[in-house]
Amino acid sequence: MSFDRLIAKIIETKNPTVVGLDPRLDYVPEFIKQECFAKDGQTLKAAANAIFTFNKMIIDEIYDIVPAIKPQAAYYEMYGFYGVEALVKTIAYAREKGMFVITDGKRNDIGATMEAYTTAHLGTVMVGDTECEPFGADALTVNGYLGTDGIAPLLKVCSEKDKGIFVLVKTSNKSSGELQDKLIGETPVYAVMGDMCENWGSEQIGEYGYSSVGAVVGATYPDQLTELRKRLPHTMFLVPGYGAQGGGAQGIAGAFDEKGLGAIVNSSRAIMCAYKNEENCPEQDFAKAARREAVRMKEDITAYINLK
Amino acid sequence: MSFDRLIAKIIETKNPTVVGLDPRLDYVPEFIKQECFAKDGQTLKAAANAIFTFNKMIIDEIYDIVPAIKPQAAYYEMYGFYGVEALVKTIAYAREKGMFVITDGKRNDIGATMEAYTTAHLGTVMVGDTECEPFGADALTVNGYLGTDGIAPLLKVCSEKDKGIFVLVKTSNKSSGELQDKLIGETPVYAVMGDMCENWGSEQIGEYGYSSVGAVVGATYPDQLTELRKRLPHTMFLVPGYGAQGGGAQGIAGAFDEKGLGAIVNSSRAIMCAYKNEENCPEQDFAKAARREAVRMKEDITAYINLK
Repeated sequence: MSFDRLIAKIIETKNPTVVGLDPRLDYVPEFIKQECFAKDGQTLKAAANAIFTFNKMIIDEIYDIVPAIKPQAAYYEMYGFYGVEALVKTIAYAREKGMFVITDGKRNDIGATMEAYTTAHLGTVMVGDTECEPFGADALTVNGYLGTDGIAPLLKVCSEKDKGIFVLVKTSNKSSGELQDKLIGETPVYAVMGDMCENWGSEQIGEYGYSSVGAVVGATYPDQLTELRKRLPHTMFLVPGYGAQGGGAQGIAGAFDEKGLGAIVNSSRAIMCAYKNEENCPEQDFAKAARREAVRMKEDITAYINLK
Repeated sequence: MSFDRLIAKIIETKNPTVVGLDPRLDYVPEFIKQECFAKDGQTLKAAANAIFTFNKMIIDEIYDIVPAIKPQAAYYEMYGFYGVEALVKTIAYAREKGMFVITDGKRNDIGATMEAYTTAHLGTVMVGDTECEPFGADALTVNGYLGTDGIAPLLKVCSEKDKGIFVLVKTSNKSSGELQDKLIGETPVYAVMGDMCENWGSEQIGEYGYSSVGAVVGATYPDQLTELRKRLPHTMFLVPGYGAQGGGAQGIAGAFDEKGLGAIVNSSRAIMCAYKNEENCPEQDFAKAARREAVRMKEDITAYINLK
């Protein structure tokens, strides 16, 4: 009913970062792809198996030093229902290894339909009198454009099953301001959405002071990160846009509180493709390269914050 | 590169409605469920098979009189990757029968990730040198909170593969006004989003005058439907909230232009569960009851508009 489990993992690993698993087939080393193609041909099934193998090998190398993974649903859907099966298997494998799993789905709908998304990603569904877990993540990213009707079903499951959500507040992309920076009275849309997050989470605050309702705030907007950290004291931040998109560690420091908590910073491609960026790294060592980049990122981020 | 294919189907069937296939297992008649449970036990696989059988039998009864279906992704994800397989099969079956398929996924993200969603739902993906179609819908609902970065990848595929999108503008739920009705200067957020739709679609306008970028506007807000119809002359409307949520046919009439075009009205549960609402309808006749409700809805809606 809060982000306590995630925060405890962050403190345990002294690492406020999350590895985004957004695996395009291009990122997967040839030796994995060729093995899967040999078995199932050039099919969506083979692509999905290659992706799961890739994810599994990365998880094996990082689970002891990184608290969480963030699989991005789009990259799995891109390979059809076999891809979605690879997502389910990735979530299960990471949780088996003790990692916290944030499914990045940016889901949104209302009423009974939002209940269905909540059940899908965070809950369980009854089939006859058997309880089944469809995806089983620990947290889900969501879009709050539809208002409380779209968030209420999530709050119920967060409370009952100790799960969390991250609501899009100020996204990392260049055109995020087209709507999010527009002023409602004197308050930008993103701050109005942020206030809604504080409100939605107000009855589910954990022992570290953060609720089960977090916010997505981009590393590319350091001023807004700092402003929102002050404005939203009980809202945990998920911070995309570090590295590739241009967000630096110093600018991100404003997302954290005085104890170095309150935020988790994502990196996806830089970690998945570390073996392509290192000089002379054989592709067989892709997972070890991913670990090296995860360590580098941890040191980069924690140099500017007070996490003990 | 516009909604011409959908509009042509609407004119052919003289029916501006779409059947929402949002199948909770509760909606599926016992005889279908028991057959699937007997084969695969009380599993997500059995649930998914039951849902596909249910959808298929409804499609068989309505494909000649209804132009489109709108499967809601949440209800398939609720049954895990087997559920997602049922979505893929439902889309393929409806298209085989000549229906236009709108996947209601309300997807949203930025850049490469939004490209992945676009590829997943409307495009094709390369696996090695083989081109695969992951979901294959004709149109997708999306959320525009992230701005142009989240929409641009869709526009490219709409143009290249003759697909369409519906962006959430004014949703049908009670709390939609929490953000959507707030004023930016003198313009409500929903109208700002509507203007963005007109802008995004401005280079993809078809022979009926509508672009490939539509808008979701709820039947529960008749004044806004009428206002937005005038404000957004090239934007096709997808109108949820008819019936169960309280939107009446007379109020919806404002969503249509003077030719009775420019909007398509959704009904989900009233059609899927028509057999439960009719007196003395045996559950074996659920699909025929769905057809009767589809006919009733068509007559109700077209009584107030000028579709010839």
